[in-house]
Amino acid sequence: MIINLEFDTPLPAIEALCDRLSFMGFTTQLYHHDEQPIIMVLQGIDATIDQSAFSDLPYVKSVSFSNEKYKLVGRHLHSQPTKIKIGGHQIGGGPFVAMAGPCTIESEDQIHTIARLVASKGATILRGGAFKPRTSPYDFQGLGEPGLRFMRDAARANGMLSISEVMQTEEVDLLTEYVDILQVGARNMQNYSLLKRLGSCGKPVFLKRGLSATYHEFLSAAEYLLAHGNPEVILCERGVRTFETLSRNTLDIGAVPFLRELTHLPIVIDPSHACGRRTVVPALSYAAAAVQADGIMVEVHTDPDRSVSDAAQAITPETFEILMKKCNAIHEVMNAI
Amino acid sequence: MIINLEFDTPLPAIEALCDRLSFMGFTTQLYHHDEQPIIMVLQGIDATIDQSAFSDLPYVKSVSFSNEKYKLVGRHLHSQPTKIKIGGHQIGGGPFVAMAGPCTIESEDQIHTIARLVASKGATILRGGAFKPRTSPYDFQGLGEPGLRFMRDAARANGMLSISEVMQTEEVDLLTEYVDILQVGARNMQNYSLLKRLGSCGKPVFLKRGLSATYHEFLSAAEYLLAHGNPEVILCERGVRTFETLSRNTLDIGAVPFLRELTHLPIVIDPSHACGRRTVVPALSYAAAAVQADGIMVEVHTDPDRSVSDAAQAITPETFEILMKKCNAIHEVMNAI
Amino acid sequence: MIINLEFDTPLPAIEALCDRLSFMGFTTQLYHHDEQPIIMVLQGIDATIDQSAFSDLPYVKSVSFSNEKYKLVGRHLHSQPTKIKIGGHQIGGGPFVAMAGPCTIESEDQIHTIARLVASKGATILRGGAFKPRTSPYDFQGLGEPGLRFMRDAARANGMLSISEVMQTEEVDLLTEYVDILQVGARNMQNYSLLKRLGSCGKPVFLKRGLSATYHEFLSAAEYLLAHGNPEVILCERGVRTFETLSRNTLDIGAVPFLRELTHLPIVIDPSHACGRRTVVPALSYAAAAVQADGIMVEVHTDPDRSVSDAAQAITPETFEILMKKCNAIHEVMNAI
Amino acid sequence: MIINLEFDTPLPAIEALCDRLSFMGFTTQLYHHDEQPIIMVLQGIDATIDQSAFSDLPYVKSVSFSNEKYKLVGRHLHSQPTKIKIGGHQIGGGPFVAMAGPCTIESEDQIHTIARLVASKGATILRGGAFKPRTSPYDFQGLGEPGLRFMRDAARANGMLSISEVMQTEEVDLLTEYVDILQVGARNMQNYSLLKRLGSCGKPVFLKRGLSATYHEFLSAAEYLLAHGNPEVILCERGVRTFETLSRNTLDIGAVPFLRELTHLPIVIDPSHACGRRTVVPALSYAAAAVQADGIMVEVHTDPDRSVSDAAQAITPETFEILMKKCNAIHEVMNAI
Repeated sequence: MIINLEFDTPLPAIEALCDRLSFMGFTTQLYHHDEQPIIMVLQGIDATIDQSAFSDLPYVKSVSFSNEKYKLVGRHLHSQPTKIKIGGHQIGGGPFVAMAGPCTIESEDQIHTIARLVASKGATILRGGAFKPRTSPYDFQGLGEPGLRFMRDAARANGMLSISEVMQTEEVDLLTEYVDILQVGARNMQNYSLLKRLGSCGKPVFLKRGLSATYHEFLSAAEYLLAHGNPEVILCERGVRTFETLSRNTLDIGAVPFLRELTHLPIVIDPSHACGRRTVVPALSYAAAAVQADGIMVEVHTDPDRSVSDAAQAITPETFEILMKKCNAIHEVMNAI
Repeated sequence: MIINLEFDTPLPAIEALCDRLSFMGFTTQLYHHDEQPIIMVLQGIDATIDQSAFSDLPYVKSVSFSNEKYKLVGRHLHSQPTKIKIGGHQIGGGPFVAMAGPCTIESEDQIHTIARLVASKGATILRGGAFKPRTSPYDFQGLGEPGLRFMRDAARANGMLSISEVMQTEEVDLLTEYVDILQVGARNMQNYSLLKRLGSCGKPVFLKRGLSATYHEFLSAAEYLLAHGNPEVILCERGVRTFETLSRNTLDIGAVPFLRELTHLPIVIDPSHACGRRTVVPALSYAAAAVQADGIMVEVHTDPDRSVSDAAQAITPETFEILMKKCNAIHEVMNAI
Repeated sequence: MIINLEFDTPLPAIEALCDRLSFMGFTTQLYHHDEQPIIMVLQGIDATIDQSAFSDLPYVKSVSFSNEKYKLVGRHLHSQPTKIKIGGHQIGGGPFVAMAGPCTIESEDQIHTIARLVASKGATILRGGAFKPRTSPYDFQGLGEPGLRFMRDAARANGMLSISEVMQTEEVDLLTEYVDILQVGARNMQNYSLLKRLGSCGKPVFLKRGLSATYHEFLSAAEYLLAHGNPEVILCERGVRTFETLSRNTLDIGAVPFLRELTHLPIVIDPSHACGRRTVVPALSYAAAAVQADGIMVEVHTDPDRSVSDAAQAITPETFEILMKKCNAIHEVMNAI
Repeated sequence: MIINLEFDTPLPAIEALCDRLSFMGFTTQLYHHDEQPIIMVLQGIDATIDQSAFSDLPYVKSVSFSNEKYKLVGRHLHSQPTKIKIGGHQIGGGPFVAMAGPCTIESEDQIHTIARLVASKGATILRGGAFKPRTSPYDFQGLGEPGLRFMRDAARANGMLSISEVMQTEEVDLLTEYVDILQVGARNMQNYSLLKRLGSCGKPVFLKRGLSATYHEFLSAAEYLLAHGNPEVILCERGVRTFETLSRNTLDIGAVPFLRELTHLPIVIDPSHACGRRTVVPALSYAAAAVQADGIMVEVHTDPDRSVSDAAQAITPETFEILMKKCNAIHEVMNAI
């Protein structure tokens, strides 16, 4: 149920209304649509409710029921693209953002070197894994907290934001302390307890699409984050699983225009995991710019063949430089015409 | 690395050896292969290690390196099928076990009624969800702890074991208190923090295959459970995601013979989630018996059309009765010839 | 449109009616439903037609419009299973038929030896490829006509029927001359010119499901055969393409119960192509018997490792013997309960 | 086997050599690599052949064995991109070509109108179906030969080339007479008899990737065309089948860079069939330009909602105009940097 309030409803009155609904057993969320305050009733509604019990409340202009599957991530109440602003940075609604860095944070030196290089070529967000999800329990699982510290320092030293993966609820506080954006990996896209916990983490969440998640499941996972209080969600298409074996996954470039029609959230492409092959990463990045994704996340390594993980897909800083030039050029062209 | 010990190595000597390896920085696990004690070194080995440092230790008969991907779930050290024994029940290595019950525990009455009915027709394990993973955050999420209590009592009253899904590490203790087998859902198959925590929960784990998990990923997920201390793992094939839309998923019946060659763990089929269609559940159950799966997990409801979730796939107790008769008949035939 | 005629309509009157409809520009097909003659108007109908123009014709009892997608393969006009009878053999509606033989006919000797062996163990239909669809143009493409002659003689000598693949319209006459059942391979499932030509070939057609064909597409392909005059069609599920790489394809065992609800045509399972692995073929055959498929098609070779094609999936005559015993036992059990 | 000849080998000597090899039972093809004549022995070689029997022949410089899977479509002997030249047009090796037109040729008027409109906006090749592959036998199957004539005239009147689908060997001559490029549909990608016949049709072939064909299978199908004599093959990526249902298929944009590494043949993207949704077609076209595909094939209709087939995916001439502007701009940018 959607309760549209008068434009000039004073804040205390809104809060009183929310409290009252909460007391009645409803879960609500306050929302602004073209500056008009709206109370979205998320849970507790059934078909037997008398709508007039709400329409007669003070400051209530109208009451309507939404049949939309995605109450909060959908475009019906939020037609403009979400712009996530962190420091001087913005994700969504205009710029083409480059997130770059190593798959895994290997050492203090490594992350500082790579940060400096990718920043100088246009990356504004530093990526790097400190807690790694690995198929085998015997593979290297990441440096943990020291790695996060190295990355935070490297990002700050180069005027960058930082992003890293969080794998469990117990790590949310730690990650929140160190990084600017928390990443949820593809394997955890439907880890609902993690999503609920991240709803109240206070920092933007970067949600990767599951290996074989439909658009509906992907948006529903994002809806968990918003319904639990976090409006700052970035969607990431990173390739889906198909029958093709030469490519690690198959990049679903159509996800960008399809999701654009359904949601106001920013959408980023990860070409590295999509193909798993160094020589293919640039082309997929250009495709991302061409479909007007809000950015890319790319694995960059100074010595790709010695990367401790995902060596086959890391590109060199030199390749990254060319890649950025072409992406920016395409981005400009798309905005100019 | 695999350290084969003498047959008559005294327990204190084995423990001393394990302590010493642990002090050296290795993660180990003790294992018996045809009664011979074996120390499996899971982590901490690299190519520079001098093998003789281990072969010269007391009671050590030989040292070898294993190239096997699945150190613990594989058949090379454990050729006989794992038999999980709980009370008088056994899963794996012979019997055809039926796990049955509602998708969701809806009320005390409901679970008792269904438990009595399915027990009388041959089910020995009661299934029912108390914490439900739901695609949308606005769907019913289960009764929680009261549901578990209802189910435990209903199972006991009918001489059954109970099984229910655990969705997060924080719930492991609660579930362990109430149910005999903890289920990991398809969406959580690669939730590594949950798997690690379940490694030490002390109860058998029922691991569902992810929606598009390969056999390799499925077994690697099970390997996490064993590597973290839990040898009692049951694998469950529940259909994989394909292009077909009439069927909810596509049952990969070949998973049973393929996985049998690779692992000693019991394998159970879930025909209900595989097809999502009541009329198709029996045939898939017969297929499970024919490929000599160790059992089935079936959703049964006294009034399927009023089930609060997965209504389309729940069968009636009457259908379950016929299904059990035919499954048992096939099981007998397969063992007789 | 369906034109139901009086029970006792004389044949000349029916023919006159069909001629008249044909003259009016309609494509029709005569059909009997519980012995009542029915004229099915397949093409030439649009929404502007006046129904009474047909209902007033002589012997016409009633006229109705069918919204069914599958006019001829569907169950609405043909509720009983189709029984295809050739010589003393029957496919569909009861028996469990075994089609067995080598992937490729390699020599006169080879096909005679294998025919004798599989016949003695219960196979009644001899399979073997004379024209082989090969992914690479440089692979062996089959013996052609001499191969067909060898197979026909081998089948006759052992009281068997024979089946072989037809790959193009130009070969239909040749195949029709030599074999009892013409097979359409998975790659050709939607080769509509071939399907149309086979509509009038006068022999039963064995239609394999395409690699990623939905049930709807599969049945629509069969509908082509029936709409072009051939009511004797056998459907074959042979595994669909998925992400799994250990298995050649993934057997969709659920196709049998799903298709059973939609069509009256016989359904056969090909376990050999489904898994591509000798050791897995028997289990999949048992699953076929358990879901009450109308039979199996299995690759058997006296020296599997020297088979010129598909060596990995051919079973020995010894394995085939055990396989048949178990399949027959399951088939009996399923019919007995 | 590859027989490298001297640079100055006279043509009669080459022909004599080919005849001799043919007499010896080999299938050969003459080839030029950087102007050096090469005889490629396609079939008839086995491991027992004595290499010196060939190396001692006149004009033979060296003999080598190729392990390449793709003898003719691969890059090892043909490192430069194939440029297909028809009239003043070129496909491959530089330009970004737009093929546009209706899904189905509906009338003389329709095809002339659309041809004029798309030509004026930059399309140089006119597409339109006269023989339509339809899932159901009861759907409209196309205008046939009259349609081809309408299209040929419309193309000529606007200085365009024409392309249309050929569905069977019997239609090859007819299509060859009317159109400049013959299209093989996704369903026929592995229709080997059609491919063999098209090997000698004398016109370029546009080969669409099968619904779930791997890169290997796609290139092997193209290899059939080249091995049977036709070097002018254009590959078309048109979306693969996945689990996603909102999109008709899933465009595998990565196919372009992956195939580029493997083959010298031109690669074109079909965004219309890939997504099946009008609003998404432009974005996918931009992605095609960004990954430097050699062109696009787009369905354009003056009144999309009244298109007799594929209505949902046809774009208007107005949308096509914008689409072309942006594609050309991206194409320029990619070449400029």
